[in-house]
Amino acid sequence: LQYQAGIYRIANWSDITNAHPIPGEGIIKGLAEVGIPKQRGLLLLAEMSSKGNLCSSNYAQETYEMAKRNRNFVFGFIGQRRLTNAQGVEEVDFIYMTPGVGLHSSSDSLGQQYRTPQQVIEESGCDVIIVGRGIYASLSEGNLDQVVQKAEEYRKKAWDSYLRRISPSL
Amino acid sequence: LQYQAGIYRIANWSDITNAHPIPGEGIIKGLAEVGIPKQRGLLLLAEMSSKGNLCSSNYAQETYEMAKRNRNFVFGFIGQRRLTNAQGVEEVDFIYMTPGVGLHSSSDSLGQQYRTPQQVIEESGCDVIIVGRGIYASLSEGNLDQVVQKAEEYRKKAWDSYLRRISPSL
Repeated sequence: LQYQAGIYRIANWSDITNAHPIPGEGIIKGLAEVGIPKQRGLLLLAEMSSKGNLCSSNYAQETYEMAKRNRNFVFGFIGQRRLTNAQGVEEVDFIYMTPGVGLHSSSDSLGQQYRTPQQVIEESGCDVIIVGRGIYASLSEGNLDQVVQKAEEYRKKAWDSYLRRISPSL
Repeated sequence: LQYQAGIYRIANWSDITNAHPIPGEGIIKGLAEVGIPKQRGLLLLAEMSSKGNLCSSNYAQETYEMAKRNRNFVFGFIGQRRLTNAQGVEEVDFIYMTPGVGLHSSSDSLGQQYRTPQQVIEESGCDVIIVGRGIYASLSEGNLDQVVQKAEEYRKKAWDSYLRRISPSL
């Protein structure tokens, strides 16, 4: 109901939505009933970046299996690394988008933990970085130029990390 | 931010809020910063009622330990049974509220599974039943009298189950 209706009517304008798999596969099937007719896609939250989170390796594994069974709607994950089956084989080239990214490894008072673009893209094999405070924090200081500059810095660091991953000789 | 601000300003009017503990203890601390000054309380989702959900027994156990460490704000759980520590001891008399309740055990096409008030209150030791479709389904048939009648039926069944639990001789 939140995806289809409510005040936001998310499915009407959002190409990509993410969902926690914790309720079980029914959450995918329920969202798919609304999203597939509108040609939308879903990312599953396989792992989180906050300290002490309860996404165990078994949780990520079950999420991966759920995604494989629902490829008509699920095309990737919110996570911290590329996933494989229990035998360590990457069976599907899913998309991986990664939050908790900063220019330096660090953490905040509520347990958010930051990893660098290089760690996320080059070492852990993720595809897209999701950056929040690293970019918009300068806004509160009224410094719009710095927001733009920070965004560009993150973009370049992530892209360079990606090039290094796919061409290790660089 | 969703708890304090946003369009709903939930903390301004809701005495009780629930949260999934999956992000880790930071979620409790973040909500508590907003909720405690307003004398609000939090329930943690320790277990879900949907088929194939990922709340393992270890997940519920970690949730229980988080709650014990945050008793100034957390006063109970959304769950399917009373929880104990790893040694099977119920150390704190938390409140347990339970969704997925129907007058008959059953399940729907998206994997929601229903247990009866007797199973939930008498056998599993929960305190409060949360009933959705079991009551409001009659509304879509325009039958308001039946909605009231259903609510009363659930209330009585849950209360009788509670009396049997605390006075087994009844």
